[in-house]
Amino acid sequence: MKQVILISGASSGFGALAARALAHAGHTVYASMRETTCRNAPQVAELLRYAAEHKVDLRTVELDVAASDSVEAGISSVIAECGRLDVVIHNAGHMSFGPAEAFTPEQFAQLYDINVLSTQRVNRAALPQLRKQGKGLVMWISSSSARGGTPPFLSPYFAAKAAMDSLAVSYAGELARWGIETSIIVPGAFTKGTNHFVHSGAPADQLRAAEYNDGPYAGVAELALAGLAALEPADADAGSVAAAIVGVIGMPFGSRPFRTHVDPSQDGCEIVNGVADRVRSEMLRRIGLADLLHPKTIA
Amino acid sequence: MKQVILISGASSGFGALAARALAHAGHTVYASMRETTCRNAPQVAELLRYAAEHKVDLRTVELDVAASDSVEAGISSVIAECGRLDVVIHNAGHMSFGPAEAFTPEQFAQLYDINVLSTQRVNRAALPQLRKQGKGLVMWISSSSARGGTPPFLSPYFAAKAAMDSLAVSYAGELARWGIETSIIVPGAFTKGTNHFVHSGAPADQLRAAEYNDGPYAGVAELALAGLAALEPADADAGSVAAAIVGVIGMPFGSRPFRTHVDPSQDGCEIVNGVADRVRSEMLRRIGLADLLHPKTIA
Repeated sequence: MKQVILISGASSGFGALAARALAHAGHTVYASMRETTCRNAPQVAELLRYAAEHKVDLRTVELDVAASDSVEAGISSVIAECGRLDVVIHNAGHMSFGPAEAFTPEQFAQLYDINVLSTQRVNRAALPQLRKQGKGLVMWISSSSARGGTPPFLSPYFAAKAAMDSLAVSYAGELARWGIETSIIVPGAFTKGTNHFVHSGAPADQLRAAEYNDGPYAGVAELALAGLAALEPADADAGSVAAAIVGVIGMPFGSRPFRTHVDPSQDGCEIVNGVADRVRSEMLRRIGLADLLHPKTIA
Repeated sequence: MKQVILISGASSGFGALAARALAHAGHTVYASMRETTCRNAPQVAELLRYAAEHKVDLRTVELDVAASDSVEAGISSVIAECGRLDVVIHNAGHMSFGPAEAFTPEQFAQLYDINVLSTQRVNRAALPQLRKQGKGLVMWISSSSARGGTPPFLSPYFAAKAAMDSLAVSYAGELARWGIETSIIVPGAFTKGTNHFVHSGAPADQLRAAEYNDGPYAGVAELALAGLAALEPADADAGSVAAAIVGVIGMPFGSRPFRTHVDPSQDGCEIVNGVADRVRSEMLRRIGLADLLHPKTIA
């Protein structure tokens, strides 16, 4: 069934791939991003060209996940155009790389803003509509790092993604009775095929970073990145994440998996989440709230 | 062996209990907190009275974890007084309770600041000294919610504690080669014996909260809190967390457990962390960084 879908952070990476794949699957897709008229104007032009060439319903919308006003305006315009919004995909994110101690608290706050507060802004703008409809899907692009193996020097990003995954789980229970389904996609590390690693931020305190990189941690950055890349099979394809997103959205309401792992490197997250999600279910049953485990059918 | 210990958020809760217990065990303990001359002046007076009565080395120090200047001044004064700092305990934290959607992004940011950025401020002030010494212990008071069962309406807190736990794990590997040990204490929910739940913050968007509490989620807040309390054995004692902290700090350097769970309700966190910590070890071995699993002996 054709869905109206909004995806955040669709100028590049998983977001750009998923927007195209979802449009090909027949949905109305809003590829949202900031700076559509300046920095990302080429991405907008390319998306529209792609839509025309393939005759798919792929649109773009200005939406800066760091600013509540922009988020509200973007989502209002989608609802005004379509009269509804069926699926929200929390995809926007940013990475940083360096010794934890060398990042300022402000840098940690910025990473939390882009990776986590972003989703809260989008939720607060979109959920009233989804609740009014009595039906919808909130999809979260999490990270295997939240529960899997974690190499050094990615601490602000890992902390933010762990928080984002936790928030997804909290929202799942709090949206179920409104008829809103939750599905979490858990990609592993894809060191190729997106700009995620290339565009990662560096620590502001370069003196502190040098104490690590020129001291006992000399060579660790290179080892960590090479190690991550080596764990990845040669055929690892960032497109497989987009394919998983399309697959889950195509399933009937109420039957979608709570989590879908797409981790060619098999960093262990899937087994940890398997245990964690069972433990979550067990507690909700023990406290008499088992109905929160599945979205109610209303509309 | 007598240690110089700084603990954050020691005006109440686990922090206040642990400060006393550590002093009884023979350590020099700095119970740090903000507003030592105004709001928390009674807590300071009581700590000093307690120290005099029991003839233990329990001191207080002004340290507002929300302000880098205050953190730096507090830790500098400890180092100036003692010439060293052996143990840092990240304990400060704050909770909030209500539907996720009803918290503003700013409220999420505030909870992240108190529960996570606080630790980064303390680390950036304290770690240069610990690294210089070539020996030290960083202890994190995490939460079983980070990986265990999670009732509704605690999302900003759960997200922050998941991030804090992730940061603890990242730091563990990045401090090992400096001779700094990491130990994570994982308390379950103690609904009695501390003010953690009583003092929790409420959502700013009361209209949005009412849509949940007067709508499909009527009664859920009460069920969740009653359910949490019911899972707790009658003899659950917040003092057991302080006892665990004393026990771990008393162990020889290099032999302390990576995690210690103190969860009378058995919410499942311990089994999830067991798997997660194995998966972390496996990845560090696979990428050639197995030495980061244990603190190096230098000093």
